[in-house]
Parts: sequence; structure tokens; C-alpha cells
Amino acid sequence: MKIVPINTVEKKKVNMEGASGAWKQIPLGSKDGAPVYSLRVFTVEPGGHTPFHSHPYEHMNYIIEGVGALVNASGEENPVKPGDFAIVEPDEKHQYRNKGNKPFVIICGVPKEFE
Amino acid sequence: MKIVPINTVEKKKVNMEGASGAWKQIPLGSKDGAPVYSLRVFTVEPGGHTPFHSHPYEHMNYIIEGVGALVNASGEENPVKPGDFAIVEPDEKHQYRNKGNKPFVIICGVPKEFE
Repeated sequence: MKIVPINTVEKKKVNMEGASGAWKQIPLGSKDGAPVYSLRVFTVEPGGHTPFHSHPYEHMNYIIEGVGALVNASGEENPVKPGDFAIVEPDEKHQYRNKGNKPFVIICGVPKEFE
Repeated sequence: MKIVPINTVEKKKVNMEGASGAWKQIPLGSKDGAPVYSLRVFTVEPGGHTPFHSHPYEHMNYIIEGVGALVNASGEENPVKPGDFAIVEPDEKHQYRNKGNKPFVIICGVPKEFE
């Protein structure tokens, strides 16, 4: 059993190509003994976004705060708000964008092999 | 890609022995095509709790709202608050209790085989 307040977790800038104003935390990852799944938190600054990309594993998301959009493979923005869950399938192209003027914060779960 | 606002998901009373005032939603489960992990939401009423039990799979938790406690195998209460993440290891005895006077709401992830 382990309890991890999110504000105690180091926040690192996402330096991937295509990312802008995005920060990552890993409150519960493989290094914490997560048996199957890792939970990360992304904070996207106003005007920022995650990369528009795909990868062979899914995302399981929960919107914590802010106003954002989940972009689909066609480039269409789907609005998301706090309390929304989302699944991005493996190999599905996607991007999260901050559409508001405050931080946009989401949980992003991935299989532990990837984090 | 699928977006599921939590208030659109059916809420069912938890009828397990040892549960009191606890309700479950499954915004993203195996029926939604979750490849690896399922995300459920538990809402515990003031004075309520989940069962004090163990099972052969872990919990990956995030506290959405309310004031609560995560009880360890020795019966000790560890306070948890919104923004806290928690991992309960497989076979570890545990319980969530609402310690406040408003609903206590948490995300509870489990391998898709179990939900």
C-alpha cells in the first residue's frame, strides 16, 4: 500500500517532438511496484498540447481540471471537461490540447511496460 | 476513441458483504474495449465504506473528491484527499472509508479480467 499526493511528485517537461507546454508526473509507475498499469499525470499550459501521434498501446484518461480537447485521427477536436473519462485505442492517432486559460490536467494510464 | 462523462454512467449499489453506502460506476471497462485495464468510480456516502477484504489483483486509485481513509491490513486508517493516488497490492487487505460529511469519490482501476 502506498499513498502518493500528486503535489509531491516531480514534474518534468515533455520534450517529445510535437509537444508544447506539457509537463509529466508519474505518481504510480512500474518503479512503484505497479503490477500491471502505470498512472501518469499530464499538465498542459494554456495554448499547449501533447504530440499529435500514435503508439502501439492505449491511453486510459480522466480529466482532472481545465478545458481541453481530445483530437481524433482526422484532426477533429472533441471537447473534454473535468469528470470525463476517455480511451484512446492502440495505434490511434490522438492529441490533447488545452482550450482554456488555466492549466489542463489529466490522468493518463498506460501498461507498465511503457512507463 | 471514446469519451465518457462520469454523470452519464449508471450507478449501481455495491451489494458485497461488508460494504455500506457504496456505489459503483464503470466508465471504461472490458465492455468498452479497454485492452488491459478497467477504470471504475466508487462513491461512498458519509459514514459508508467499501468491504474490508483482499483479492488477488491490485487497485490503482485516485481520489476525486471528499475526505476519506484507506485502511491497511492492520486496520489503521491512512487519510486520503483529492489529488492523492494510491496503490493497493494484490492480496493486501484494505478498505476505503468516508470520513467526511459529503460524498467520497474515487477512481479504482483493476485489470480488465476483473471488471
